[in-house]
Parts: sequence; C-alpha cells; structure tokens
Amino acid sequence: MATYVLVHGSWHDGSMWEPVAAELRNAGHEVFTPTVAGHGKDGDKSATHADAVASIVDAIVGAGLSEIILLGHSYGGTVIARVYEEIPARIRRLIFWNAFVPEAGNSLMDEAPPHYRDLFAHLAETSPDRTVSLPFSIWRENFIQDATLELAESTFDLLSSEPFDPMLEKLPLDRFYATLSQVGRSFINGTEDTALPPGEWGWHPRMSGRLMGARLVQLPGSHEVMLTNPVLLAQKILEAGRD
Amino acid sequence: MATYVLVHGSWHDGSMWEPVAAELRNAGHEVFTPTVAGHGKDGDKSATHADAVASIVDAIVGAGLSEIILLGHSYGGTVIARVYEEIPARIRRLIFWNAFVPEAGNSLMDEAPPHYRDLFAHLAETSPDRTVSLPFSIWRENFIQDATLELAESTFDLLSSEPFDPMLEKLPLDRFYATLSQVGRSFINGTEDTALPPGEWGWHPRMSGRLMGARLVQLPGSHEVMLTNPVLLAQKILEAGRD
Amino acid sequence: MATYVLVHGSWHDGSMWEPVAAELRNAGHEVFTPTVAGHGKDGDKSATHADAVASIVDAIVGAGLSEIILLGHSYGGTVIARVYEEIPARIRRLIFWNAFVPEAGNSLMDEAPPHYRDLFAHLAETSPDRTVSLPFSIWRENFIQDATLELAESTFDLLSSEPFDPMLEKLPLDRFYATLSQVGRSFINGTEDTALPPGEWGWHPRMSGRLMGARLVQLPGSHEVMLTNPVLLAQKILEAGRD
Repeated sequence: MATYVLVHGSWHDGSMWEPVAAELRNAGHEVFTPTVAGHGKDGDKSATHADAVASIVDAIVGAGLSEIILLGHSYGGTVIARVYEEIPARIRRLIFWNAFVPEAGNSLMDEAPPHYRDLFAHLAETSPDRTVSLPFSIWRENFIQDATLELAESTFDLLSSEPFDPMLEKLPLDRFYATLSQVGRSFINGTEDTALPPGEWGWHPRMSGRLMGARLVQLPGSHEVMLTNPVLLAQKILEAGRD
Repeated sequence: MATYVLVHGSWHDGSMWEPVAAELRNAGHEVFTPTVAGHGKDGDKSATHADAVASIVDAIVGAGLSEIILLGHSYGGTVIARVYEEIPARIRRLIFWNAFVPEAGNSLMDEAPPHYRDLFAHLAETSPDRTVSLPFSIWRENFIQDATLELAESTFDLLSSEPFDPMLEKLPLDRFYATLSQVGRSFINGTEDTALPPGEWGWHPRMSGRLMGARLVQLPGSHEVMLTNPVLLAQKILEAGRD
Repeated sequence: MATYVLVHGSWHDGSMWEPVAAELRNAGHEVFTPTVAGHGKDGDKSATHADAVASIVDAIVGAGLSEIILLGHSYGGTVIARVYEEIPARIRRLIFWNAFVPEAGNSLMDEAPPHYRDLFAHLAETSPDRTVSLPFSIWRENFIQDATLELAESTFDLLSSEPFDPMLEKLPLDRFYATLSQVGRSFINGTEDTALPPGEWGWHPRMSGRLMGARLVQLPGSHEVMLTNPVLLAQKILEAGRD
C-alpha cells in the first residue's frame, strides 16, 4: 500500500486530518499528518515559511519515508511545492487539494484577491503577534458553508491564529517548475469551494492549470470537506493518489 | 423555524412554487409564495417594476412578517434586491437562485446576452400588450432540458406572458449595494442552468460574484429544477437559508 | 424508439462503444457504431478527413437510416458537423459529447492548445506513417483518470494510432453553421473531462457555446466515461437525444 503525508492549510493543524486519515488507514495505507511549524494553538507564531517547509521535510526524513504521496491543502500547497524542491527523490506524487500553486516568485498573498490581502494585513497589524484570526462569518459563509451551524461553530473552536509574514514571502519555485514533469501530479477540486472566490481568482482552473497536465479529481463540497464529508474526501484522495 | 418568502421569475406565478413550498413546510418552516404584480394569467400586464416591488413589499408587510429569508429566482433577483432596499429591517437573509443581481444602474435586459435582448424586443413589439411569451423551443432546450418532453409540455401550459417594459427599467440599487454587507447573502446555482448561456453571460460566477462573499450552494439541474426536482431544490434552499 | 449513430473519437474505433450501445439497445433504441475511415488497428492510415466523413455518410445511407440522432465524441465532432452538411435531411438531432465544434475554417488542431499541437506534430513526424500514438501518461492522467490503473492499462491496449493530417485539414463548415438552427442540438459535458485542459482551451462553454442554444447535459466523469461508466453515459445520451 501507499504512504500518504497530508499537509494542512492555514488556521489548521495536523490533528484536523484525523477523520480523513482514519479512512485512508482503513483502506490499508500509511498516513502521516504533521503539524506545520507556526501552526496549532501552541505553535511558535514567529515561524517563517522556511521553518514551515523544514518542519515537513524533517517529519518525512525523520520517519525515513519514501515513495510518498504528498498532499497539500490550501496554504499547504505552498509548503509541498517547496518540500518537493528539497527532497524530490522521496516523493512519488504531489496532490494539491484546493491548494495554492504560486507562480514562480510569488507569495501566497500575491495569489489572493485584493479584499483578502487588505483584510488579512489589517487583522495582522491589529493582532499582538502579527497573526490573522479568521473571522467567523468568513469561516461559516465561504469556508464551511456545507456544514450545519453547530458543526461550523464546533470546528471554528479548533482553529488557531495564522502567522501573516510567511504569506508575504516570495517563493522562487524555480526548481519546482523545472522538475515538475518528473513527479506525479494531481489536483482535487471541491466544486463549492469558495475560500477563493470563483472566477478570476478561483482555485480551478487557475491553480490546477499550472501543474502541467495534472490529473483532475473533483468532489462536491466546501473548502472544509475534510470536516463535513471526510469519507468522500478520502475516496477522492485515493483516486488522486493511485498510480 | 424560519419564514421563507419565495419570489418567482419571469413567466411564472407564485403557484408554481407549490411542490417546493410543500417540502419546506414539511421541514417545519413558514412559506409565502406571492405572485409578483404583472404576472400570472390574470395579471395586469401594464405593471411596472416598481409595481412588482410594491406587490412583494405589501405581501410581506401585510402579513406582518419579519426575520424573513427572501429568495428570488431569475428575474425575481431584481425584485428582491429592490425589496431589500425598501424594508431591510424585515429581512434576515437574501437568497438568489440563478437570479439577476444587476449592477447598479442596469436593467435586467442590460444583463442579458444580445440575442435575448433582440428576440424579446421583437416578441414584445409583435404582441398585443408589449409582453414576451417564451418560445417553447427555448423553454424545452435551455430552461427545462432535464424534464421529459411530457413534463416540459405540461409545465409550459402553466406559463404566462411577461411584461417587457419592466425588463428595460434601470435600477439604481445604490442602497442595495451600500447595505448588502449587513444582511445574510446566499447564491444557489444549478450546474446545468442554461437560461443564461454559460460563460461570459452566465449566472455564476458573474451574478454570484456581485454579492460580496455570498454563501454558494450548488445543485445539479436546469433553470426549472423547481419543477423537475423540487425535493432537492428545497433541501438546497434550506442549506442556503440556515444561519 | 429512436435511431442512434455514435461516432467515436481519435484513437478509438466503433467497437469501443459496445457497453454504451448495449444500454441504449436495452432501452429499446436502434444503435449503430461505425468505425470512421482511418481508424482501428486495421484502418488505412492514409485516409483524409473527407474519407472519414464519407465513411459515416455511407454507413448511414447504406443502412437506409433516417430521423437519426447523430452523436460525435471528441474528434468525432468534426465528423458529424460535416456529415450534417452532406445529409441534413436524415438527421433529427446532433449530440456533441465533449466534441470539437470547429469555428468555420478551422482544423481540429487550430482548436487544440499549443502544447498538443507541438506534441502531436512531433509524434507524427517520428512515426512511420504520419500517425499519432497517444502516450500512456496522457491517457492515464488526462483522458481516463477516473479508472483504476488496471482498466486504464487494459483499455489502452484497445487504442490505435491516429492519422495526423486530417487533424490539420481546414473545415469550411459554412453550411453547418448556416443551417444549424434547423436541427436539434445537444452538448454533453463530462465535468472532469480534461482531454482539453479546462479554461481558455476547454470543451465547455467554448465548444458548447458555438451550437446556438444547444441543450446542455452534464455528467461526472472523464473523457473516457464510455469505458468507466457506460451506464450513466447511456442515460445522459438519452436525456440529450430525446425530443
């Protein structure tokens, strides 16, 4: 069976993969869900993007993993693109699930619509530690609109504040794009994912189209279908991850 | 439970909501389906857009409704945008179901593709009362293509002629856009809705994108899924309407 | 019941329709699946686009068929557009299933993204008979990504090499566009069909939008859903083909 490493997005930590990871393990796979540096309620919020990348590289190398299927969600796409640059020989396939695939030289914020850039900058500036806490209204309306209000509220309590400066770091990604054709590539798209607004700034085909003929897998659901429909997401991860 | 007011689109009247309204009532909600002025087989076809808006405002105020979830379908989007300007304090959430969200100052026809503008103008000019009767071929191929021919024919008999001049009225909508962020906003999109042709002139994300971060809910089906799959539409209205 | 003529795409032959044809026959319809000239493992690879068109016209006229529902898949769209020009009186409805609808005067390759044009030209030049054999990686990742690896491999063995020159032939299609409004028109879109990359070069709404208000039917699945989900495809063909 295969080895999956799942890299979460902003405001999340590795523990939030648990329902999905359990499904993948039930199907016979090995699954790792490391928390990215700077994330989680106890994370060091001064972590840089390089720290984030190093934390995942260390988790993979430390566990001696190879032939990995490496999945990044949302912000996690910027992490797995960099991890692939660092340890390409250990990675069999990259899966971007509604994830950022920044153009070479761009930061995550360069890829976000102006209203998010302005809002996040404001929230970071008015926070004690240059972090962004996601407003509940955005979480409920644009991230997890397919949940009941109860689930939206209970999962909101699991979120933690997100360091803002890593979102501003320019990522060269020269090696990523130069060697991308040498690794398996998949993109999973949730058809109701509005964490990025559909259209000009949307996930698909804007991000998916940068992956040079990636395999496309779609599923109904929001940006947080890991929480609202983990069984279906796990099934789609397997379709995206198989040879 | 909640109070739903459902505002139909062109060629329809309030009675055509019945299968959907029955589902919502079964789920415990209060549902109103007023017929918009100028609509229905016995409607006064000289009604203006202001008359249309007033007829819905009167229905709401007359019944003493508040905390309303106000849904507009198709042309009904132009009505609920204006109703929200008139009685914002009574409205908890606006739902646009494949509905027009005109840019400030535009008429409905300004938002329609040129071939519809030309066709509707021609049909109005050659009618006795400046109304547009929808050709069956458009109804069958682009509005209700997910029905059997029998259902397409039987429901076609329920349609009535649509006053053309209200479609040409420019709607300032300054108050609508100025206060939109103060009300709940959802957009329901039927993934096979071709009443507006997909792409440049399509419903989504063109109309949905004007609603400042509206909650997106999608369902398979045509523009007339109220007639072809009312159970699923009712479920999606509840997902769009809940807090 | 109705008469269906199904015209396959590149690398395919008529026999690959069998699971779909069986479903349509079970529903009571008459189904023909001719192999287009130049196609199949034993095909004459020097066949021109005109030969391809003539082979389908001959199959229809030879069998004395009329009131046909004529479906083209992928490259087959260029064939049925031309067949309609030749024998319009025999055709009741055209169905394009993720099929090329070339603009007047364009070749198929004019409608394909640059990276395919370059790749196919290279493959043809390095082949013994100016044909293109589809690389397995493209087949697996972009054509049939919804199959297991086993099914992707077993069906790959069924493919045959595709003559390249017919893909370069400019098709005037004046009569097609001049008379298109006189025939039924449907477009079937697989929502995960990435044989053409989604977006600027995608199937839908780029191709579907050229059909002057065609009926849209969608289904989940890849470009090869005829092989991965023939039961659902047959159902959608019936929805696209009925009056």
